[in-house]
Amino acid sequence: MLADELKQLDRKQMTQLAERIREELIGAVRETGGHLASNLGAVELTLALYKVFDFPQDKLIFDVGHQSYVQKLLTGRDLSTLRRKGGASGFPDPAESEHDAFIAGHSGTSVAAGIGLCNARDLRGENYKVVSLIGDASLGNGLALEAMFSSEDKPKNFLVVLNDNGMSINKNHSALYRSISKRTVKKRYRTFNSFLSRTFKETNSFGRALRRFKYSIKGWLNQNYFFERCGFKYVGPVNGHDLGELLGVLADIKKIEEPVLLHVITKKGKGYEPAEAEPAAYHGVCRNFEKSEHSFSDALGRLMLDRAEQDASLVAVTAAMTDGVGLKEFAEKYPARLFDAGICEEYAVTMAAGMAKGGLSPVVCVYSTFLQRAYDQIVHDVCLQNLPVLFCVDRAGLVGSDGKTHQGLLELSAMRAVPNLSVFAPKDCAELADIFDFARSLRAPALIRYPNGSAEELGSVTKISHTSLWETVSDGNGPVVLASGARAVARALRAKELSGTDCKVINCRSVKPLDQRVLDSLAAKRILTFEEGYASGGFGSAVAEYYAVKGMSVHLTVVGAENVPVAHATAQEQAETLGLSAEALAARIRAIS
Amino acid sequence: MLADELKQLDRKQMTQLAERIREELIGAVRETGGHLASNLGAVELTLALYKVFDFPQDKLIFDVGHQSYVQKLLTGRDLSTLRRKGGASGFPDPAESEHDAFIAGHSGTSVAAGIGLCNARDLRGENYKVVSLIGDASLGNGLALEAMFSSEDKPKNFLVVLNDNGMSINKNHSALYRSISKRTVKKRYRTFNSFLSRTFKETNSFGRALRRFKYSIKGWLNQNYFFERCGFKYVGPVNGHDLGELLGVLADIKKIEEPVLLHVITKKGKGYEPAEAEPAAYHGVCRNFEKSEHSFSDALGRLMLDRAEQDASLVAVTAAMTDGVGLKEFAEKYPARLFDAGICEEYAVTMAAGMAKGGLSPVVCVYSTFLQRAYDQIVHDVCLQNLPVLFCVDRAGLVGSDGKTHQGLLELSAMRAVPNLSVFAPKDCAELADIFDFARSLRAPALIRYPNGSAEELGSVTKISHTSLWETVSDGNGPVVLASGARAVARALRAKELSGTDCKVINCRSVKPLDQRVLDSLAAKRILTFEEGYASGGFGSAVAEYYAVKGMSVHLTVVGAENVPVAHATAQEQAETLGLSAEALAARIRAIS
Repeated sequence: MLADELKQLDRKQMTQLAERIREELIGAVRETGGHLASNLGAVELTLALYKVFDFPQDKLIFDVGHQSYVQKLLTGRDLSTLRRKGGASGFPDPAESEHDAFIAGHSGTSVAAGIGLCNARDLRGENYKVVSLIGDASLGNGLALEAMFSSEDKPKNFLVVLNDNGMSINKNHSALYRSISKRTVKKRYRTFNSFLSRTFKETNSFGRALRRFKYSIKGWLNQNYFFERCGFKYVGPVNGHDLGELLGVLADIKKIEEPVLLHVITKKGKGYEPAEAEPAAYHGVCRNFEKSEHSFSDALGRLMLDRAEQDASLVAVTAAMTDGVGLKEFAEKYPARLFDAGICEEYAVTMAAGMAKGGLSPVVCVYSTFLQRAYDQIVHDVCLQNLPVLFCVDRAGLVGSDGKTHQGLLELSAMRAVPNLSVFAPKDCAELADIFDFARSLRAPALIRYPNGSAEELGSVTKISHTSLWETVSDGNGPVVLASGARAVARALRAKELSGTDCKVINCRSVKPLDQRVLDSLAAKRILTFEEGYASGGFGSAVAEYYAVKGMSVHLTVVGAENVPVAHATAQEQAETLGLSAEALAARIRAIS
Repeated sequence: MLADELKQLDRKQMTQLAERIREELIGAVRETGGHLASNLGAVELTLALYKVFDFPQDKLIFDVGHQSYVQKLLTGRDLSTLRRKGGASGFPDPAESEHDAFIAGHSGTSVAAGIGLCNARDLRGENYKVVSLIGDASLGNGLALEAMFSSEDKPKNFLVVLNDNGMSINKNHSALYRSISKRTVKKRYRTFNSFLSRTFKETNSFGRALRRFKYSIKGWLNQNYFFERCGFKYVGPVNGHDLGELLGVLADIKKIEEPVLLHVITKKGKGYEPAEAEPAAYHGVCRNFEKSEHSFSDALGRLMLDRAEQDASLVAVTAAMTDGVGLKEFAEKYPARLFDAGICEEYAVTMAAGMAKGGLSPVVCVYSTFLQRAYDQIVHDVCLQNLPVLFCVDRAGLVGSDGKTHQGLLELSAMRAVPNLSVFAPKDCAELADIFDFARSLRAPALIRYPNGSAEELGSVTKISHTSLWETVSDGNGPVVLASGARAVARALRAKELSGTDCKVINCRSVKPLDQRVLDSLAAKRILTFEEGYASGGFGSAVAEYYAVKGMSVHLTVVGAENVPVAHATAQEQAETLGLSAEALAARIRAIS
């Protein structure tokens, strides 16, 4: 394992290794797609951490985890299989390696998890170091802030490394970030430092003494009340691409017991010019660095631009995902009407509730998996007050290569139980527009879910309305397939062909409310529900429940995902594994025909 | 309305009014039960805000809202009906009065909601002041911190009042609080201030100039970087029981446009000696100031004490609810094994996940309604890693007089869809112990839900095990009632008597997994499910779904709560309104017999 060899390398060899790793990263991500810029920025930092600490005896906890590819390379994961079925995950996963001390994928977890590990270690009388590696954008997340402020008495032998690249996925505008950065990139220190570095070498004992002196000066110049009040000894800022500086500082930190916050300045995309120039574009990329295709996100973006022109009350809210949800042009055209909360989903939703209360019509654009962070805010701040906030939920259903931590399989179950909230799922992008307008006309909380990737346009049958919540997209005299969501409807139509049956396919674009008229008319038929989400509590469950609440006996089959975590693969492979492909559905239809 | 008269009163009359209000508060809460200590602490502050600002044109947003009784008195709510069916809510509710600018009940929402309101006002070109009133304990919540740090550019005409009583519901130990309080109760200022106050009167123009001078001195002595970096002009600390000081400062603040954080020091329980002495005991009280009865919380407390003695790996985690969840004695006996996260449910859960990863066996004790705050942490940090964290969920089901914001009706739907999580509901306190041990023996994520109030002990039939997940508590040849949860089982037994039928009653103490053996054996019977939770996605839905996933046709009736917000009343009245009483159930049983 490279991690073991690393211990033997000198600094020059490590520099060469860093270069090799960068090439390997670029090559691997070009082949498989994935996160590039964040990993290029963390090469020297990861090498230095592995050189100084003794992982996996010591524990390294990544925040978000999209910067963990270097660690994967060091610890025997095969990057050529990255994010592919059966291959290495694109995020840390303890099930994959003992080097992955904690799962990651969502933001802001590493400090809380680190404190928990330290508490366990101390109560059990064990002895190891815990290192949490968190980016500047993640530090602004509520969970991270709760952990930072949790107590003045932080555990001993706990190191938080702040990987500060001055960037969220987009640019970071938080008060937190500005207040930290102001105190750190002080010109007077940098001048002083570069003078010392030019003048003296740090290879002998005088050099080491000098380094300590430099840090005491730096500490004095950069006194960081923020972190010190949180119970950390503050060390930094350190150049995160200078292996010498990193190794020296980490070796010093390893010797002390005191909880330390080490502030490391890195450059996102470091060492690959296109990524340095456009770090946001190289944050997550597809094979051959092509831009991913997201039909629904693009459609939403066009829709928002159009409706914003007609309605001055429409505002957009996002949580550090302006580009991802399709709002790039909106942000350029209507900067005052685009509210990017940073990675703060809770704040985004409650702030949107405040805007709705004040007479605006907010559209919260968010990925399904991250919406989980704001569950209580949706319930308490939006829905109990019945406020007209529209949630446009992207990446719903199977997400493919991002895997376990990013699946959008839960939101139907969690959200359809929330009082006052309507839930919709368009069959294609054209219908997204109809539903968008219909949902906003309700002047009440509503949620629209749609999947990642490209979408097939199925052609309009009827516009959604209170009297046509559902529509028949393919008529027939056989069993009735109730399909909800774009992929489900498209597959149901294909499954009808494959099955050779005369089944009827209904597009159940409104999950809540259900189309009771249609359901009542079907009571004597054989019915099959189909969705891309957990069957537990999902759309099919809602149909089963509808009949059961009325005490009606029906012939009903529910087809949805089994209630297990779903690992990385293509979304199509995931559907096949879960029995949610068109072929599998065709077999289920034949079975009840 | 008292609020209008208030505008005419001079300071002396206001002081008399404050005294009258205190008496009325004490009298009303003695009669109805409710929150006392927090309201006694906010009397002068609320009066001063209403004297200076023009609510409801200006907007007053309470955080948590258990300190809003004084406002209710001022704005025509009848406190003799407080928390009673059809009476005044114990929390702010825009549906009750236009003076309630935003709903409250959960913690940390007021700053985000306030910023949202300001954004709406500014985009719409309106002109009013927004005031968010937040306690020191709530400020440590992740949502509040996200909002505080959201941007350096806070909206104009926005005032955040920090009501600092140096207390959470229990004592606040956060780094945040200590760092604020250190800078505020500076003796040198207090000495100086009391000297000035003794020497000069503030009633003439010299006095007013003096006050301004005092505050400039105070500002200099108390420079508060924390709030200033968040984009607020910091004013304070102000004595929150000195009407003169409050009125003067608020009048000055009203004149400026700059966003202000006003730091007010108050005493919880002020003016009622028993409450001043024991503010935690007088936080929430029952009629005649009796302590509330919580059988399940008490039972959990005893259980934790007992099991902690046998198992050194057992640790308890709570979020500012040590007493409420029954852990008071545990905290005294095992202080090193009790982790109180403050009002930080997200941190509590992820930190617990870290402790589980480190080899401990954490039990997270939390109210159902507040668990919503940690939904993503349960999914992402605990369940995806399949960690042995046990959630003991108190106040599940109908909560009675706390009303809408505090109902525990959602957690079955939201939680049963989470992969790897088992979900249980004991029929009584004795069974809580059995299930507690069984759940911990799974060495995987598990959740136990139980209601508020006292519980009837129904007597043991069988201990829960993998082969007896459910038990028959009353045999019979008629329809089968599948009841889940303590109240549901007790009512089902009573309903059997009332119905005069020979129905069978099964205690469905495991909601996930379901007892498939029992379900399969019942397929030919008439089945009725019964639970105290939303039918949408709940236990009955799980049963309907079980048969539908298998494509089995059954005679099933699901009885659960309609999917609407449920306002304050007694839990029994709420059950009656929702058709969940024993009488209503008896009628449903007869209907299928």
